[in-house]
Amino acid sequence: MSARHVALKLAYDGTAFSGFQRQPGLRTVQGVLEEALARLTKEACPVKGAGRTDAGVHAEGQVVSFRTISSIPTSRLVPALNGLLPPDVAVLAAAEVPEQFHPRYDAVSKVYRYTFFRRAVRCPLTRFYALHVPEPLDVERMREAAAYLVGRHDFRAFQNTGRPVTSSVRTVFSCRLEEAGPFLYLWIEADGFLYQMVRIIAGTLLEIGKGRFSSEVVKRALVEGRRELLGPTAPPHGLCLMRVRYPRDPFGEDDAPCR
Amino acid sequence: MSARHVALKLAYDGTAFSGFQRQPGLRTVQGVLEEALARLTKEACPVKGAGRTDAGVHAEGQVVSFRTISSIPTSRLVPALNGLLPPDVAVLAAAEVPEQFHPRYDAVSKVYRYTFFRRAVRCPLTRFYALHVPEPLDVERMREAAAYLVGRHDFRAFQNTGRPVTSSVRTVFSCRLEEAGPFLYLWIEADGFLYQMVRIIAGTLLEIGKGRFSSEVVKRALVEGRRELLGPTAPPHGLCLMRVRYPRDPFGEDDAPCR
Repeated sequence: MSARHVALKLAYDGTAFSGFQRQPGLRTVQGVLEEALARLTKEACPVKGAGRTDAGVHAEGQVVSFRTISSIPTSRLVPALNGLLPPDVAVLAAAEVPEQFHPRYDAVSKVYRYTFFRRAVRCPLTRFYALHVPEPLDVERMREAAAYLVGRHDFRAFQNTGRPVTSSVRTVFSCRLEEAGPFLYLWIEADGFLYQMVRIIAGTLLEIGKGRFSSEVVKRALVEGRRELLGPTAPPHGLCLMRVRYPRDPFGEDDAPCR
Repeated sequence: MSARHVALKLAYDGTAFSGFQRQPGLRTVQGVLEEALARLTKEACPVKGAGRTDAGVHAEGQVVSFRTISSIPTSRLVPALNGLLPPDVAVLAAAEVPEQFHPRYDAVSKVYRYTFFRRAVRCPLTRFYALHVPEPLDVERMREAAAYLVGRHDFRAFQNTGRPVTSSVRTVFSCRLEEAGPFLYLWIEADGFLYQMVRIIAGTLLEIGKGRFSSEVVKRALVEGRRELLGPTAPPHGLCLMRVRYPRDPFGEDDAPCR
């Protein structure tokens, strides 16, 4: 029996998980997925993920891969796994990938979205998926600041301690703010992200939007590399891993966001 | 001290409530609101609601009223109550209303929205707020059927037992289907609704959209008055009470929906 290398696209509600990555004694997306795979294939099925989302962070386009000798057709994996998974995780697509495929190292870029909900009063219906921002925001000033992030920079100021890296240089391909009714979406795409980088950017742009920081603080932090110049780390529940891009997309067409 | 008559506009996530109406031993929106009001005003504060939403049903524009001799300014009620309420209820606005105001009897109409999520695979991020519909739907046929509901009709077929009424005649002012990406919204406005009427309409339009019923079944049910002609009662989590209209709006401008 030959081993098949399979990639899955996942969506999950991060609220009741301690993050993506397996941790002993904690409920994680990886743990719950590996358990469902083991039940389905009757073998241990470790998965590798494209992004290591924190506790509380959501995903609409996480990518994982695993190897299996099971004979279950790849097309059957989606309904079969979704029948075994809890309601807060779903497999959106499954596809066979080349033996040497690595969901994280092969990624060309990842797209994250941070959602702000801008009303005076909090909304119970969005509380798990958006950060409530009652204050007025100067979105144009936030856009000025966001523009400084685009390009290849040393983002060492835009990381929290906890995940050391060889190099803190990354290329941000785009960083934009989208307004839709009471929602303000921060969209960012980069070739990679440092630990809690998007949440630090969201927290900083928020302080800039509230008028507490100048948009210049972003430029200064890129030069001086000091975390203290920037804003607080925004809470996890506004963040969602939307998409991981590869040189050859395993799955084909992407759907519009589901929220 | 004179009594003030105050109306509140409420939003709530119905997931963890056994409905709006107070019931002994169960967690209800009315129960939780009356408790917060009692803590704030130091007096018992029974509220009357405009609509009696079922367990699991959400609201973005429920209206309640109560009387109080408390001296707390009406404008302070919103932040004060929101500080005391649990995260799944919020007061959006407060306004003084005339002594004779009744939130249910004075209502000119109510607007409900039922949300369908149309993708092959369920989405964890919408699971509490939309009904997952993986099958293809003929929305035009659903629109034909929805059109038959508009106007003044005897809707006795469109009710479940449990809440007897004097008359089952109601006027549906509008009933339309709105497509937005993967979402299909059923919007309906009427001068009043029978018990579970919107959910029966949603469940019936869904069967029509799936091709299992003809759109004529709606016309036939309006004539014959038999519940059995219609579809299943759609689950509560797709339903949201969006707005209650009055001859004189207590609150002024309404916001766009928050989801």
